Amino acid sequence: MEKTMNPTAALIIIGEEILNGRTKDKNIGYIAEYLTNLGINLREVRVIGDEEAAIVEAVNALRAECNYVFTCGGIGPTHDDITADSIAKAFGVPISENAQAIEMLLERYAPEDLNAGRRRMARIPHGAALIPNSISKAPGFILENVHVMAGVPNIMQVMMDALAPQLAKGQPLHVVTIDTRVGEGTYAEALREIAAQHPTVSIGSYPRFTAQGFATQIIIRGKNLQTCTAAADAVHAMLTNI
Amino acid sequence: MEKTMNPTAALIIIGEEILNGRTKDKNIGYIAEYLTNLGINLREVRVIGDEEAAIVEAVNALRAECNYVFTCGGIGPTHDDITADSIAKAFGVPISENAQAIEMLLERYAPEDLNAGRRRMARIPHGAALIPNSISKAPGFILENVHVMAGVPNIMQVMMDALAPQLAKGQPLHVVTIDTRVGEGTYAEALREIAAQHPTVSIGSYPRFTAQGFATQIIIRGKNLQTCTAAADAVHAMLTNI
Repeated sequence: MEKTMNPTAALIIIGEEILNGRTKDKNIGYIAEYLTNLGINLREVRVIGDEEAAIVEAVNALRAECNYVFTCGGIGPTHDDITADSIAKAFGVPISENAQAIEMLLERYAPEDLNAGRRRMARIPHGAALIPNSISKAPGFILENVHVMAGVPNIMQVMMDALAPQLAKGQPLHVVTIDTRVGEGTYAEALREIAAQHPTVSIGSYPRFTAQGFATQIIIRGKNLQTCTAAADAVHAMLTNI
Repeated sequence: MEKTMNPTAALIIIGEEILNGRTKDKNIGYIAEYLTNLGINLREVRVIGDEEAAIVEAVNALRAECNYVFTCGGIGPTHDDITADSIAKAFGVPISENAQAIEMLLERYAPEDLNAGRRRMARIPHGAALIPNSISKAPGFILENVHVMAGVPNIMQVMMDALAPQLAKGQPLHVVTIDTRVGEGTYAEALREIAAQHPTVSIGSYPRFTAQGFATQIIIRGKNLQTCTAAADAVHAMLTNI
């Protein structure tokens, strides 16, 4: 496909409850679609447990590879929430209670209710900027290119809305979707030829199982509308004549 | 938590359509729960695109770290299905048409319909054992500790059922789930003390947002029923008295 200068991103989902299947992730698909709409290319997602070594390794590997890293999970008040401390460790910076974060928590809690557990949610690595949380107030934070968000989907979503204006955007790709019930195996070789003849677009073929049997979407993506349309015309002609 | 000798696993989801948000993954949660029920500890999930270098890197990193690796996606007939070739490259083994895989495809397709595209689904790395596919016949395969499956959920599921009898099982953990509407921040410090007093179990606290506001599950896991029950009793007493 045409080389794009679009920013790249990686996503890290932090939570033992996803790995043991108890909680079904709802954040990957949301964030993937959100970033795509901003013209940001999500290149990799990792799901890891609430373990310092795993968090440090994933954050340090991916922040070196991508323009942006996003994390979800592990920033609550309980003992199993270790993301903020692990991010500080990954960057080799101190972490301590952040006065601005305490102010945010005081929008929700009376001073006498700001106990040790809740104050933990104000522990922020030094040098980080806060991400506001309009729902439960406990903030996320941004340290260099790493964006640390909550795991609860609706809180993650308001944090994403809050940080999005600061992200460099790319050019969203043109997308042409062709639905067909012609079997993938029937058109595979013809589609391979079309893909070879249209090197500036990306062509994918995605089968799924429906109540009426297999159905497939052929999806064409590219930066240029004309080249996408030309490839789509070729696919339509191929499907009609096969 | 008590060190378990349970087998470990990693999962690799291969598909640009998941990364761009067009398709919402349905396999991570299914496989996470499936492995947990077999006493196999899923340690990491990665979602990557249909790119040879990314597949080779993820497979080689994770097969060295875990007892089992499972992959989903990229074994269909079209040009964007490059998983089998990439796995062969990761292992440094040749890949070619497999006679047994052709026989499996002939259960579904008449010989004259077994065109070049469909024959691609019989390309299997040398040394691999096949995973039968009772739905669309095109097999997955097992090469050493790497299990290569389809991405379409119902096909992945029958492949998982087919390969599961060959997996070494662990001891499934006892799980006690306590639902509460007491706020996490209210009990966080008391729960930390209980976790410290019950080091042989794992205690997690998982908030979620419901129509009635926040609700939380405290989940206790361990190999020994008595130690789980003792920790659960302590949590119940704490929630009652807080």
